[in-house]
Amino acid sequence: MTTLPLTPDYDAWPIEADLESVSVTPRLVTVQWSDGRVSRYHSIWLRENAADDTTVNPATRERILDLSMLPAWPEVEGAEIDAAGALCVDFAMEDRRLRFHPGWLRAHDYDNLHDADAPLVPVTTWQGGPEAGPDTLSAAGLLDTSPNSEAEEAILAPALASVLAKGLVRLRDLPTEPGSLESIARRIGPVRPTNFGQLFDVQAKPDPDSNAYTSIALPPHTDLPTREYHPGLQMLHCLENGVEGGQAVMLDGFAVAEALRERHPEAWATLTRVRWCYANTAKTTDYVWFEPMIRLDARGELLEVRIADFLRGPLQTTFEDVEPAYEALMTLQRLLRDPVFAIRFTYRPGDLVIFDNRRLLHARDAFEGSTGHRWLQGCYMERDEIRSRYRMIQRARRRRWVTAEA
Amino acid sequence: MTTLPLTPDYDAWPIEADLESVSVTPRLVTVQWSDGRVSRYHSIWLRENAADDTTVNPATRERILDLSMLPAWPEVEGAEIDAAGALCVDFAMEDRRLRFHPGWLRAHDYDNLHDADAPLVPVTTWQGGPEAGPDTLSAAGLLDTSPNSEAEEAILAPALASVLAKGLVRLRDLPTEPGSLESIARRIGPVRPTNFGQLFDVQAKPDPDSNAYTSIALPPHTDLPTREYHPGLQMLHCLENGVEGGQAVMLDGFAVAEALRERHPEAWATLTRVRWCYANTAKTTDYVWFEPMIRLDARGELLEVRIADFLRGPLQTTFEDVEPAYEALMTLQRLLRDPVFAIRFTYRPGDLVIFDNRRLLHARDAFEGSTGHRWLQGCYMERDEIRSRYRMIQRARRRRWVTAEA
Repeated sequence: MTTLPLTPDYDAWPIEADLESVSVTPRLVTVQWSDGRVSRYHSIWLRENAADDTTVNPATRERILDLSMLPAWPEVEGAEIDAAGALCVDFAMEDRRLRFHPGWLRAHDYDNLHDADAPLVPVTTWQGGPEAGPDTLSAAGLLDTSPNSEAEEAILAPALASVLAKGLVRLRDLPTEPGSLESIARRIGPVRPTNFGQLFDVQAKPDPDSNAYTSIALPPHTDLPTREYHPGLQMLHCLENGVEGGQAVMLDGFAVAEALRERHPEAWATLTRVRWCYANTAKTTDYVWFEPMIRLDARGELLEVRIADFLRGPLQTTFEDVEPAYEALMTLQRLLRDPVFAIRFTYRPGDLVIFDNRRLLHARDAFEGSTGHRWLQGCYMERDEIRSRYRMIQRARRRRWVTAEA
Repeated sequence: MTTLPLTPDYDAWPIEADLESVSVTPRLVTVQWSDGRVSRYHSIWLRENAADDTTVNPATRERILDLSMLPAWPEVEGAEIDAAGALCVDFAMEDRRLRFHPGWLRAHDYDNLHDADAPLVPVTTWQGGPEAGPDTLSAAGLLDTSPNSEAEEAILAPALASVLAKGLVRLRDLPTEPGSLESIARRIGPVRPTNFGQLFDVQAKPDPDSNAYTSIALPPHTDLPTREYHPGLQMLHCLENGVEGGQAVMLDGFAVAEALRERHPEAWATLTRVRWCYANTAKTTDYVWFEPMIRLDARGELLEVRIADFLRGPLQTTFEDVEPAYEALMTLQRLLRDPVFAIRFTYRPGDLVIFDNRRLLHARDAFEGSTGHRWLQGCYMERDEIRSRYRMIQRARRRRWVTAEA
């Protein structure tokens, strides 16, 4: 019996269309699918992405082939679709037949690709206002589910989707034991510790090493902009909240940036260009980084905002740029006060807010330390972890689909 | 008695020249120094960088001023140099006199600035060859020194300087207890854990989830290129080494990239532009990132290389880019085999190699698992930590200088 070949990775690749025909030239393999689509694959691309054990270490499914060690450019002398529906390609020089899984081939059809690295979930910017609030989900029982179970997936999948799309989610009904954030966070991925520790406690403290650890109001900001790569995610977990004031305020930094681009194009241009100094020249550490306040990725999409007035060091730029930079900064500061952007909410014990720290701005009102306790525990994580966890959920769903079809 | 004012941070600012004279216009303060230098400071820049308690929270030395809350652009109506040598500036609108520390002012003289964010230590690229090796220092007794002591500084300062300049240092004579790497690393900063744990063990393992955990040869690579920001630093600590083979191989990826730019400008252009897919589609995690192999920063300097053939997923780019991309890749792969770039060495128990994981490429020869044990423990850290630690050492030295002068 002929079975489908392995894929070069551990993912599951459902077959949404069958291979119907194939034709070759030495450097190109052209296939037609059962739904009419035509896809072309370069011989060298197929050679490097084969799943056999001259190409991939079977134990790790990591590549062992070094293309430049082949005696010449890999050329194809023939191809056919076999009884299992796999594409079989004969490579001339190596006298080797390699088989490709049709589901995998279809999923990596770069010839018909629109946007390879489109976000996993489309990004939607949002505004605030008195009626608005974060997507809110109950996470009751999360820590009782088995890791990677369907029960865990049912809680995490919509939460991760909200973070990917809107940069924010609020989970409710979680435990209020100090330290439980670490077990919760691990359901997604490893925590990124910093000089403030693995978990940090947001409370008014006697000898504060950050404005966050006082009871004063904090303006809208991203955390740790003083790092080359400031943390992609932040989690704030409420353990106690009996104070007057101290409301949480959150803004979509991408929405603010887009508004700036539209209404104040000169300020936008300045803030995407001038590199501000971010500095935390504290008692025992000294982090400094220079970066524009708004950054775009190679595709021209918003990559991050880096805003925190209390963590800016002295601007060090050309003499001519100083006044325009401050003009642009004040334009942004005024925009940040426009109530249309902000959502406001009060933390309840057991709430966990997960947000994209390179996109969302968070702030808080001043609170009265004497009227009760306000205790949040927080931690950081990379955006990579949320994407990996979300991909694993997608994979599990595809695998169930493949199994149900088989 | 008049004393010098506080600075807006916790750093130490020696006074290398005195203020001699000052003149003002509403938006500009111009000073002349005792060595003849003339520096201009904008009124708004001075206002935002004052160190008084309307500007800075005295407990944290973090800014509390929001410039856009001032009624108008801050203008100056007078200035003088006081008996302590501080610059005193009178701000009209607020009816406020603010004092500036001359050492701090001089250190932030953007009017005479050549390169604000020049590297802390100049970057020097290097080649390898049979005689070459890493900078090697004894770190005997490091764990017996007090944190932040001069004894610790004497060991760390030259080590950090080598990492900043050359991307690499080898420390010798460290303990060989499993886990001791964590205490050693903490002398610099917090470790960055990953899905492979806080510390990872590089040994041949029964059920490997990475080619690193086998005894096969590894081609030159950077670790975790599958992350948006792959770790800036890696530490490999040798606990045991009794195997045949398994020599460590290291290359300066920046030297290789510069050679590529010079000798193969088309391949260079392609590899700085085409976004490869880096993927670790493993059993329990699924990290994917798209990025060029060579990246420059905003100043046009090399920022990072991202090279690891075994962690590349299927290239997903435009049809037209595929063959040029593979041609450029193979040109790079051949360059990486040029023995002029590589240094080779054998780990001794107690050795710790610290290297810039976004600059250096590391590789290893295959080894015979049966002839003994080869056990390295490794961890990751951010480049930020090494810069912060190095700045703290510079600060301690400045503080001793200031104290000796006083």
